[in-house]
Parts: sequence; structure tokens; C-alpha cells
Amino acid sequence: MKQAIHLAKPTVIFIMGVSGVGKSTIGALLAKQLEIPFFDADDYHSEANILKMSQGQPLTDHDRHDWLHALNTLAVAQLKTNSCIIACSALKASYRTILETTIAAATKWVFLHGSFQQIKERMQHRSHHFMTSDLLQSQFDTLEIPQNALSIDIHVSPEEMVAKIQENLPLKAQFGLIGLGVMGKSLCRNLAQKGVRISMYNRHVPEVEEDIAINFKKEFEELSSALPFDDLPAFVNSLKTPRKIMLMVNAGTAIDAVIENLLPFLSQGDSIIDGGNSNYKKTKERFEFLKSKGIHFIGAGVSGGEEGALKGPSIMPGGNAKAYQQVQPFLERIAAKDKNGVPCCSYVGNEGSGHFVKMIHNGIEYVEMQLLADVYTLLKAKGNTPDQIADILETWKSTKNSYLLEITCTILRKKEGDDWLVNKIMDTAGNKGTGNWAIIATAELGVPSTLIASALFARYASFYKAERVAANKQFNPQQHTAPKSSLEDLHKAYQFARIINHYQGFKLIQEASERFKWALNLSELARIWTNGCIIRSDYMIELATIFKTTHNLFAHQNTVQALKARKSAIQKVVAESVLHELPIPSISNAIHFFTGYTTANSSANLLQAQRDYFGAHTYQRKEDDTGQYYHTDWQQH
Amino acid sequence: MKQAIHLAKPTVIFIMGVSGVGKSTIGALLAKQLEIPFFDADDYHSEANILKMSQGQPLTDHDRHDWLHALNTLAVAQLKTNSCIIACSALKASYRTILETTIAAATKWVFLHGSFQQIKERMQHRSHHFMTSDLLQSQFDTLEIPQNALSIDIHVSPEEMVAKIQENLPLKAQFGLIGLGVMGKSLCRNLAQKGVRISMYNRHVPEVEEDIAINFKKEFEELSSALPFDDLPAFVNSLKTPRKIMLMVNAGTAIDAVIENLLPFLSQGDSIIDGGNSNYKKTKERFEFLKSKGIHFIGAGVSGGEEGALKGPSIMPGGNAKAYQQVQPFLERIAAKDKNGVPCCSYVGNEGSGHFVKMIHNGIEYVEMQLLADVYTLLKAKGNTPDQIADILETWKSTKNSYLLEITCTILRKKEGDDWLVNKIMDTAGNKGTGNWAIIATAELGVPSTLIASALFARYASFYKAERVAANKQFNPQQHTAPKSSLEDLHKAYQFARIINHYQGFKLIQEASERFKWALNLSELARIWTNGCIIRSDYMIELATIFKTTHNLFAHQNTVQALKARKSAIQKVVAESVLHELPIPSISNAIHFFTGYTTANSSANLLQAQRDYFGAHTYQRKEDDTGQYYHTDWQQH
Repeated sequence: MKQAIHLAKPTVIFIMGVSGVGKSTIGALLAKQLEIPFFDADDYHSEANILKMSQGQPLTDHDRHDWLHALNTLAVAQLKTNSCIIACSALKASYRTILETTIAAATKWVFLHGSFQQIKERMQHRSHHFMTSDLLQSQFDTLEIPQNALSIDIHVSPEEMVAKIQENLPLKAQFGLIGLGVMGKSLCRNLAQKGVRISMYNRHVPEVEEDIAINFKKEFEELSSALPFDDLPAFVNSLKTPRKIMLMVNAGTAIDAVIENLLPFLSQGDSIIDGGNSNYKKTKERFEFLKSKGIHFIGAGVSGGEEGALKGPSIMPGGNAKAYQQVQPFLERIAAKDKNGVPCCSYVGNEGSGHFVKMIHNGIEYVEMQLLADVYTLLKAKGNTPDQIADILETWKSTKNSYLLEITCTILRKKEGDDWLVNKIMDTAGNKGTGNWAIIATAELGVPSTLIASALFARYASFYKAERVAANKQFNPQQHTAPKSSLEDLHKAYQFARIINHYQGFKLIQEASERFKWALNLSELARIWTNGCIIRSDYMIELATIFKTTHNLFAHQNTVQALKARKSAIQKVVAESVLHELPIPSISNAIHFFTGYTTANSSANLLQAQRDYFGAHTYQRKEDDTGQYYHTDWQQH
Repeated sequence: MKQAIHLAKPTVIFIMGVSGVGKSTIGALLAKQLEIPFFDADDYHSEANILKMSQGQPLTDHDRHDWLHALNTLAVAQLKTNSCIIACSALKASYRTILETTIAAATKWVFLHGSFQQIKERMQHRSHHFMTSDLLQSQFDTLEIPQNALSIDIHVSPEEMVAKIQENLPLKAQFGLIGLGVMGKSLCRNLAQKGVRISMYNRHVPEVEEDIAINFKKEFEELSSALPFDDLPAFVNSLKTPRKIMLMVNAGTAIDAVIENLLPFLSQGDSIIDGGNSNYKKTKERFEFLKSKGIHFIGAGVSGGEEGALKGPSIMPGGNAKAYQQVQPFLERIAAKDKNGVPCCSYVGNEGSGHFVKMIHNGIEYVEMQLLADVYTLLKAKGNTPDQIADILETWKSTKNSYLLEITCTILRKKEGDDWLVNKIMDTAGNKGTGNWAIIATAELGVPSTLIASALFARYASFYKAERVAANKQFNPQQHTAPKSSLEDLHKAYQFARIINHYQGFKLIQEASERFKWALNLSELARIWTNGCIIRSDYMIELATIFKTTHNLFAHQNTVQALKARKSAIQKVVAESVLHELPIPSISNAIHFFTGYTTANSSANLLQAQRDYFGAHTYQRKEDDTGQYYHTDWQQH
């Protein structure tokens, strides 16, 4: 069955209006553009009717009865395989009723209209037509103006008229989106606001998820031309080929279930975009699987939360570069823009690289959040209220602002009654998986991402609330800070730790890039993270420039100077926090990492000796640069 | 083809000796025990020979010729399907040559002998025999004593004689071991020393691994009755059913390859023990796969290194409890013994639990090693030589000794020329996978194992040798300690950190036990780690007792007192190390973890607010113990 190419569903478009209004011209033009057949009702008169008309006799309603039924039969037959356009004056409501018998739901009425004078003048230019002024007047007299038709004024050019009609037809959508959760809905609205014709699908789960798409469409004006579905084949069929379908469903088996359900209805060359936080290894598997089916798969990290998704997220698409070109215009249109107006969306690399960098983005995010939590711990211990803490943090914005710093100020000022809301929130932090995966990746790749670990484990430890309260009673720590370290020290410690965090995050990306041969562009990644995403910051803008010249942040003089200028401050802050029993895991581990990293001769020689002693694991020697391995019988004297 | 049940390979056992020595009695008894057929040569004489003998005429060699050939034919035919025993006087070497024609390699000669007087007396009690003293004398005269036979003196009971013969037969082995690397060889020797009949297999790789098993057997006397193979079917066939085969090959795909190669030759009910450091998830998969084939699979962690494997390792077997009973006697026999003489080998739990706890054992080991490396860093920074450091560490043994403390002292004293060997070892530490896996497990289970992470990442960071040297030049840290913290402080800091390490390790095991429903016994695990393994220590002996009453180490008063008494010391040591830029990642993270753990109200409330702000992730409230989730529009004033 040949499917309609452009129309969202098989439709009969009746172009109606008085003689001479231009039905055939417009109908033929529209049919050509929509690639569907065009029929002129005049061609379907019986011989008797033709004879009557050629003799100048007006047709009675009785004469018209069989003709209208014949046209209805034609329309019904056409609908079985395709859409079509039928030009027919259909002046009376009763005629129109016959024409759309049994197919009213699939019928679209287009009513062409102009003034008597206008049409009369036109007709005088058309010598072949046998219409007189009297006949035209009788048409105007007969005309019952339709209520449910699209009215098109003929004073503009035929091209403009056809464009106007197309705008109002249920055309196939340019882009489909599956899964109308918080992020999915925001992306739909973003797409629609950017003028993209979208289809939106949400599954139907009785009494749990019902009419999600339809109700969502009703809620927002920008979705007026969006097509809502809870029927998957209809959704797929509503999309222009090659189809572009974005999945915004829960990462994990839900993705595979949706893909499995979609597959029978897709065509070679269609593209699926997974915009969720999928595991990059799974993305690679899906990429390979769908490749074998001739379907493109783009694993795209999307960051920005609900607001970012609506106003412009940062998008990190990975997969086949050529396939990406098909979806590029849509993703770039909805993405945030950097300070130069360039979209914060850029092809990342092959396989699951898009989801990999999103995972590390989230790892960096975990740490940036924990660093602010560490700062909050210290400022609270100094006796500040949340408002006072916000006051202090406000002053930090001028140096190097960040989205997370900004929202933290807003959060700290939020009151509920006489107290600050933050004081009332339970201190057990959740996580959605990407943090764990980042740690798994760093373990597998052999990269020391100590800060992501510190932030992740701080969240894990927060879950032992009851144990913590019991231990607090048991050990009774004295958790307050002496006034030794200044606010400036704390600010510097925070800045120092942020540099270490970004060093580690990009280092992990760089190592993965080399291991998986992804050839990732660190500078471009930093650039698409300068806006739209949760870790956007003034520092990220600097990094986009720095990474143009080096992969190693620590080799850049800006970094060297920034760290040197802040080192003694973070040492003071961490030493003090240890002595005063204040937990600041991420700030602490930042200086620990730095100390280890700047140690030319570490204690790992002892570890190697131990390993060789009990496991005969052998070791290398400092003075032997051939890298040869040695084994010693350590017990022999 | 019915295989021999007890004999390692199809064998013809000829029981020879003069008439009246007891060949038939012994042959029949032995045949019954080995479950193979018994034949009496006298039953194979021709009618002519029988007539001659009944007339009292001695047989000539010519008479015997056909008879001996008939017996050889019988033996050859038997060998095609099974072993057998043939009782035959076979007094002359030439007779024996005929008997073993073409089957010499599969022939075992057993020579029964006694004095003339002894046999004569015996015969007088046997009325049915037609032997006279003269005839007996002629037999003694004819006898040519065999050189390659097992000589059995008939002065003991038939049962004792049969036992003696069995000892000297190539009996099927009780236990098989595949993979003769460092650990595999040590386990083989250990098994053989404990009197276990083993078969040993190592693959044949031309020019790389040739005759490994045969050469290994030659090297050690205790392996004299061990059977060496490089042919897998022969190895399998040499094992008594149900077979017990231990794999000591590299973890990973090598295990699967060996299992695949083994499977066609195994029988229902056989057991495979994987004694390598396999990933516990893979062990579960293999367990399920082999279960479907009717084969038992035991994933057994084995710790102790080369020396432990030889003298008695700690063994952590997991899998089906009933299947374990089959291999239990062997594993317990080779395991180390605890202070009460009980084997350091105990059934851990179902599925991959044995390999899981071995992985955590190694995680604890990583940390114990890093803590000593941290101590070494600080003592070195105080200006001590390796010998002086060893002197200090020696004094720590009396408080709480450990295997790793002991070997560290030995290592530090080892000199090469005028310098200490440890000074010459390259400071880039390796790792074999279990450390990474422990971190992956802790991430997946949501447990904050900060110390394993610190130790693993210290090893990872050690690999950036060139970067570290460059950064050291660039940042020029002043790495020395002021005399503020005493040796006693350092000792206390070390002890404090060891408690945190063991808390975290057992906590991770406990969480896994609950998640996977393994019902692990922490006290018993601590007990089997009190000897044989790398983390054996006086503290582990304490833990075996403590875990009898609680799963939560921090809830035990001994621990509370021990931590309280050492807290200010570790605070001082860590604060000082931060100020003096000395990297002691594991000691540092021990106090950080403790500080976080004893914080009743953490900063995670701010994290939850941030997550709710940008991702609508919701939060719980302190005053609402229903656990309800809330969402706030943070931007609304």
C-alpha cells in the first residue's frame, strides 16, 4: 500500500466554490505538491447531464444526485490507497453531505471565495468557459457558505493560496518524539516554538497514562499543529520519511522495548535519537543492532533539565556522522546558543560517545554540586544563616559565575514561613545512575577520577541517615570552624577544587577518546557546555579556548598560575576542616589529588615491592628505562 | 565404551609366581576391588595340554607356546574395552615376552613370592591341588625373577597384599588441576603433600608451553604419583568420577575456553572449581550455564599468593552447597588452619559469592598496602632511611601484627649494594582487575567504599610518572614534615585508618549479601581470613569474634573506644600532611569518611534542593517521616 508522503493521514480534499473561482487550477497545483491524484468533478457527469448542460439547461438536484454519489464512490475508493483532491462546486450543504458520506472524518473542505465582480472579470479572460453572468449569479444565489471549511480568499496568487491551504492541512510531521515526561514535553514545546511540525507519542497505560499526548497538546498553544498519538503505528505513519524519532523514555530496558515495538513500522534510512541518559555501552550495542536493520541510531546526551529542554539545552549527539546530518537541523534549532550565537549542539563522535560525554558531564556536575555543598558546610559551621551564605556566594559571581552557583543562591534565599526551606529538606541525596556509571568507566579506563568518586560516595553516605545520627551521638564530634581561614581562603579553595574537577573530567574524556578511537574535540565539547547545560559557567568558556591548544589542562600556564595562587588557601581550609571534623569530601580530595599529582617520587615503589613479594608480580626499576621487569626473592638474605 | 573406573588408564595386570603362591586368590580379590574382569590362565589350556597335565607329564615350552599366545590375544582383546587381571605363573622371561606382545606399555607385572617351605605348608592345606614337592621344586628351579615387576611378599594377609598392589597401580586421580602457573603449581604440590592423588594438566603451545606438566612432575618428589598431561581427554579420563577439576587459569575468556573444551568429556555430576580471580558476575553466568549441563561449578577465591598456595591458602568457595560437599575434603585439606586448627576454607554462599568476597578481600588488601605506603611516605618525609622505617614498623608488630606489616619490614631492609632495593623500584603500581571490580561493585551497590577508591586511584595516578615529574617541577611542592605529629600519632592514625578500611570492606560484603540474598556470615569470613591470606592479621582475629554479635562494626564498643582514642591523632597527621603537601590518600580519606559518617545533618539537603531546582527530582522533608516527596518552584517569590 502506497502511503501518503506528505499528509499525516489519508485525506480527501474537496476544493469547492462557485464556477470560475479557480478550483481546478488550485486543486491541480496542490495535488502536484502533495504528490496525490487530482480529480475534476466535471469529468464525472453522466452523458445525460453533459447533454443538458451543453444545451444550456441548468441541472436539477435530481440530476446531480447520481453524480454526487459517483464522486463519493470515487473518494471512498481513493481513500483505500491514498489521499486525493477533488474539485467540485458543492454549493449546497446537502451536496456536501452526499460527497462525504462514510468518509467525513477523512474529508477536508477547502472553500475558495471571491467577490462576484472579481470572478466575473476573471471569467471574461477565460474564453473556453461557457458561463454567463446570469449563470454566475445563480451560483452565488445557490451557494450555502460551509461552516467547517478552510476559507481561502482568491485575491492572492495561486501559489500563496496553495501555501495557505498546506499550512492548514494535517501534513506529515518533520520530527517525532516518544515519551512525554518532564524532558520530553519540554523538548516538544521547544521544537514547536521553533516552527517544527512534530508528532508526539506517549504510551497508553489504562488508569495510569491515558490521553497524555492529546491533553498535553491542549495545554499549550504552540502545539496547535502538533499531532498527538497513543497509537504507535499511526504515530510512525504520521512522520515524513526518512523519519526522525527522538526517544525521551527511561534509560534501560524501556529503550529496548520501544525500539522493538517501533522496528516493524520503520523504513530503511529512518533515524532514532535516544535523548535519555543511556549507558554508552548499551548505546553502542543498539547502534550496531539498528545498523544491521538499516536504521540510524543517534545517542544524544541532552543537558539542561526541564528549563533547558524548553528554552534550549546543550545537546551531545553521537553515532554515524552522516546519519547525524539528517537530524542536525532540528537538534541545532532547539539547542541553546553560545555567546557567539552558535548552537550548543555538535556532533561528538562515533558509537556511544555522545552518551559517554554526557555521563562525564554529569560526573562533573556531581562534583560542582558537592563543592558548593562543601562550601555551604563550612559557611554554616562559621555560623551563617542561609541568607548570609547566599550573600557571600553572590559576591563570588563576579569572579567566575556558573549556573549552579546562581541557583544555589536562589535556593538558599527561599523561605517557608519563618525558616529557610533548605533547612527543612532531608539530607539524603539521590542519584540517577550516570554518577555510578562515570565511576565504573573511570575504574575500567584506569583513570583516577577522585572527585567524582568523592561526590558520588558523599551521596551514598548521605543515605545512612539513621546510622549517621547514631554515630553522631556516639562520637559527639565538635563541628564548628575557628576563624583561622578567611572567606577569601574559602573562595580560593573552591576555585582551586573546580579546576581539579574540570581537569579530571576532561582527562577522563580524553582517555576514553584514545581508548575507543573516538577523536573527541575537547574544545568543542567545552564550547557546547558553555550554555544550556547544568555545568555551564564562565570557566567553561575559558576552557573552550584553553583546549584549543592543549589536552592537558595542567600544562597550560593560566591553570598553573591559578592553582599556585590558591594552593596555600585550600591547604589551610582542608587542614582546618579535618581538625574541626567538618566533612568537605570534594574540596579535600581536590588538594589530595593535586598533592599526589605533583609528587615526582610516590610511594608506589613500596606497593610494587609488596606485590612482587607475595604474588611474584615483578617490578620495573628507576635506573632501567628499557622497562624490563624484575623479580626478587625478598626473603633471601 | 565402558571406561575403567579406578585405574588411570586401561591396564592388563599379570599376577605371576610359582604354583601355590596365591595368584588366583589375590587376582580375584584385586579384580573385585578394581571392578575389572579376572582370568585364570589355567582355564585357557588346550585339551591336549590338560590331558598331559592330568597324566602328570610336565609341559614343554612348545606345549606352552600356543597357550601363552592365546593369553596374549585375550589381553589385547580385553584392553580394547577395559582393564583386566590375568593370573599366570609366567616363570620365564620368554613367557612374559609373549604375554605382553604389543601391549607392554599397558601391562603391569605383579610378582608374588614366598619361601619354598612357606608355600609347601600352604599347599598341604589345599587338598584339591595336584602339586607335589617335586613339582614345586621344579617351579622354583624354572623361575626367572622378573626385573620390572612389583614384588609382593606373601607373608601378610591377602587384604594387605591387595592394598599394597593398589598403592602401586596407576589408579585414577582423586582431583584434577588445570593450569600450571605460579598458583596452580603451588596448589598441586600442596595437594600431593597432603596425600591427594592428582592429575595435572597444562596446555601444549609449541615452543611456548611444552611438557609443562611432565617437567613439573620431575621437579618435585612429592609429585611422584601425580599424573601429568597435556592431552585434555586423557586428563579427564584419568580422574575418578564424579570428577573434581580445579581451574587455575587466567580469569576471563580463558576460563570459558577451558570449560568449552572440557565439556564434551565430562559426565553429569562432575564438579569444576574456578580458583582464579574471576569476576563474580561471570561466575554466576558460568554457574547457571553449567547447571543446565548437569555440571557443578564452584567459584572459589584463593588468597595467599605463591607461598600461601603451597603452604596453605585461605579458600572462599561459592556455589551450590551440596556440590561443595564433594570438593570440601580436598579444599579443607590444603587450606591454612586458623589458631584453633580449623581450616581457613568455608562455604561462602550461592552463585558468585565466593569470588565476590575474594574481590572485596583484594579491595581491603589494596587499602592495607596503601596505608603502609602512606606511613612510608610520612616516615620518609621525616628523614628516615628504609631501615629506620623498618625499625619503627617493627615496634608496631607487638600491638597488632599483620602479614603485610611483616613483609613490609622485610622489604624495607632489603639492600642491593650500598642502597636499599626499595629506593630503586619504579613508582608505578600495577593492578590485576579485582580492585577495579571492587569499585564497580561498590558503585553498583551504592556503598561508599572511599578507601578502596583512594587506594585504586593512587595506583592509577602512579602511572602518570612523566606528568608527575613535570608537575613537580612546575609546582615545586615543599614535601617534608614538621616535627609536630609524633610517631605515636602516626601509629594511631594508621590503626584508625585500618579500622575504617575493615568497616568499609565488611559493609560492602554485608550490602551485597542482602542485595543478592546470599546470607553471608561475616564472622566466618573474618575467621577464614585469619590465616593463609594476604590480609591476615591480629585485627582479623578480633573481627571474627566481633562479627559474631553485630554486622555493624561501628556499633561495637571496642571499635568506638579504639576510634575515639585515635581520632585526634589522625586529625593531626592528616592536617599536617595537607599543609606539607605529602600525599597520604588512604589515611586522609579514612578521617574524611569518619567525619562524614558522624555528621548527623549533612549538606545533602542542599544537593537535593539543587536537584529539585533543575531536574524536578523532588525531595523529602525532615519533619515528615512518611517519606513523602515534595517539589518546589524555586524561582517563584
